[in-house]
Amino acid sequence: MATVTILGAGAMGAAQCRPLADAGWDVRLWGTRFDDELLDLLSTGAPHPRTGVPLPDSVHIYRSGQLGEALADSRVVVMAVISAQVPRLAREILEPLANADSLWLTSKGFSQVEDGRVRLLSENLRRIAQEAHVELPPIVTVAGPVLADECAAARPTAPVFACHDISVAQRYARQCSTPAYSIMASGDEVGVEVCAPLKNSYAMALGLVDGLSERDGAATHNLRAATFVQAVHEMAVFGRQLGGDPMTAAGLAGLGDLEVTGQAGRNHGFGRRIGLGASTTQAREEMAALGQSVEGIDSTRLALLFADQIGHGLLDHLPLLRMVGDVLLGREIDPLASLAKAVLPRTS
Amino acid sequence: MATVTILGAGAMGAAQCRPLADAGWDVRLWGTRFDDELLDLLSTGAPHPRTGVPLPDSVHIYRSGQLGEALADSRVVVMAVISAQVPRLAREILEPLANADSLWLTSKGFSQVEDGRVRLLSENLRRIAQEAHVELPPIVTVAGPVLADECAAARPTAPVFACHDISVAQRYARQCSTPAYSIMASGDEVGVEVCAPLKNSYAMALGLVDGLSERDGAATHNLRAATFVQAVHEMAVFGRQLGGDPMTAAGLAGLGDLEVTGQAGRNHGFGRRIGLGASTTQAREEMAALGQSVEGIDSTRLALLFADQIGHGLLDHLPLLRMVGDVLLGREIDPLASLAKAVLPRTS
Repeated sequence: MATVTILGAGAMGAAQCRPLADAGWDVRLWGTRFDDELLDLLSTGAPHPRTGVPLPDSVHIYRSGQLGEALADSRVVVMAVISAQVPRLAREILEPLANADSLWLTSKGFSQVEDGRVRLLSENLRRIAQEAHVELPPIVTVAGPVLADECAAARPTAPVFACHDISVAQRYARQCSTPAYSIMASGDEVGVEVCAPLKNSYAMALGLVDGLSERDGAATHNLRAATFVQAVHEMAVFGRQLGGDPMTAAGLAGLGDLEVTGQAGRNHGFGRRIGLGASTTQAREEMAALGQSVEGIDSTRLALLFADQIGHGLLDHLPLLRMVGDVLLGREIDPLASLAKAVLPRTS
Repeated sequence: MATVTILGAGAMGAAQCRPLADAGWDVRLWGTRFDDELLDLLSTGAPHPRTGVPLPDSVHIYRSGQLGEALADSRVVVMAVISAQVPRLAREILEPLANADSLWLTSKGFSQVEDGRVRLLSENLRRIAQEAHVELPPIVTVAGPVLADECAAARPTAPVFACHDISVAQRYARQCSTPAYSIMASGDEVGVEVCAPLKNSYAMALGLVDGLSERDGAATHNLRAATFVQAVHEMAVFGRQLGGDPMTAAGLAGLGDLEVTGQAGRNHGFGRRIGLGASTTQAREEMAALGQSVEGIDSTRLALLFADQIGHGLLDHLPLLRMVGDVLLGREIDPLASLAKAVLPRTS
């Protein structure tokens, strides 16, 4: 089978090696300079510290200085570095990207480049390439409820591969699915790409509900469910505004990914701390002390800025996202009352 | 405000007293003969044993022998007895029902009467009335993520009131909402009514995933999320086949209610036991020993029968429901493999 190069040896990059190797691909894993020590460890057959699972034996490892060799003649390039690093890395490798059959993004989100405007990451990559007079191959967004440790261990997982040209997504779905990694192909690249960063914001909101319940010793299951529904609704509204299919939010990329992200993890943990009574500053400090960066903090800021730039009253339809933004800005709010106001139906 | 009579003093019937009393209604609570002792207890101001919350002081209590007085001049009648009892009770009170402004169902589901065909409960009630040459007032289905204990304690709750005539639902949404009980009005009575029993079946499936994870000591969050998505998808497909709006399944009545029902409770507990390794018979016996009837067992049987009667290939689009049915029939299956087959995308 053809060669695929995964850029980024964090939990998700490493985890993707497993299904691709199982599906018969020739898999290369490249790491940034922050990953060199990690790659030394992985090359001994040791488990990845963030998934607890070793790489498949067949994976070829490339250190940070070997980017050119890692990309040589690769048919598919997978961007799995953190989202903020993607534009810079892409600029470095425009030529091998242009020669590949497709570019996959497991990194995704809202992205802000020099002109200050927020765009989808894929759109910013296309602009970067255009400015350099390079044509990118089709972009495939890889999303859905994929916790890296389960994916790496070949536990049953249902990712979404989304591409404007659905036939490209379908082709890779056929070529990369395994019994444990069964891919849903989607033509709604925009809808899927919108859900990925937004679910981090809404996972914070679910953490907030869970923290409130712990704090008060009183169940808030009904409020949690209403929060979940409002989150899916707002992902649908946001996607539709950009031309996406609102049903995408009710599928694996929206509801599905929020189900796994809203149970535990960094974004949920941050929201939970606020619910338990921490100030925003305290919650940030506590997460930092644990060495845990909270992706949703920046992505919420970008999402609100993006919604404002899109206009058409979009922000008015995102009360839950705005409420999360208020919390992140440290505005003094009563979390239970604010959450109830944001997610309960309005009857007047 | 006008008089509302709630029939059935179980957890949900008693819980509904709270928002209606808070919204200013004159609330009457009637119990079946199985509820007489419970009503003696509640009339002393003691908490309801299933919600832990006493009735509001203003509620008027009627014993089983006082059905006529309970219904006299009542503007709204709320059916909150168990679903299987609804048709019989309705036959007894057709005249006061016909005189009311509307009939609300918190009991809901698939219903089988003499001719053997399965129908929505509301449809069967309309047929029963028609046969007796009585015209029922508009039916309002009360659904959504409403755990009774939280509703009774006036914790934030977002129910759905659904009626073919959405203006009726909207009117009651205005007249019955309180700050803690904020009603979403819907015109999709069919879609809402389909979700209510189906969510019990899917809560069993989620219990099964959770049990498998406990049994194996290995997380199955990705599979759980895929199961959740498939459940919402199947509720949408089923509703659409009956003329409902598929988005209803992604809202409070579908996704929302499944979120609370799929975390804990009887249906989830039954599925969890199977996942942990119990046979269907053992799981039934364990639940029976705890005095817990599992609503989803009968409603899954009726749902499958209903789907079969509807035809048009509907059953082919419900692999997860069929898998739950196989478990309930005690078919020997490998639960992990069967679940993965039912919920993971098919790529061929």
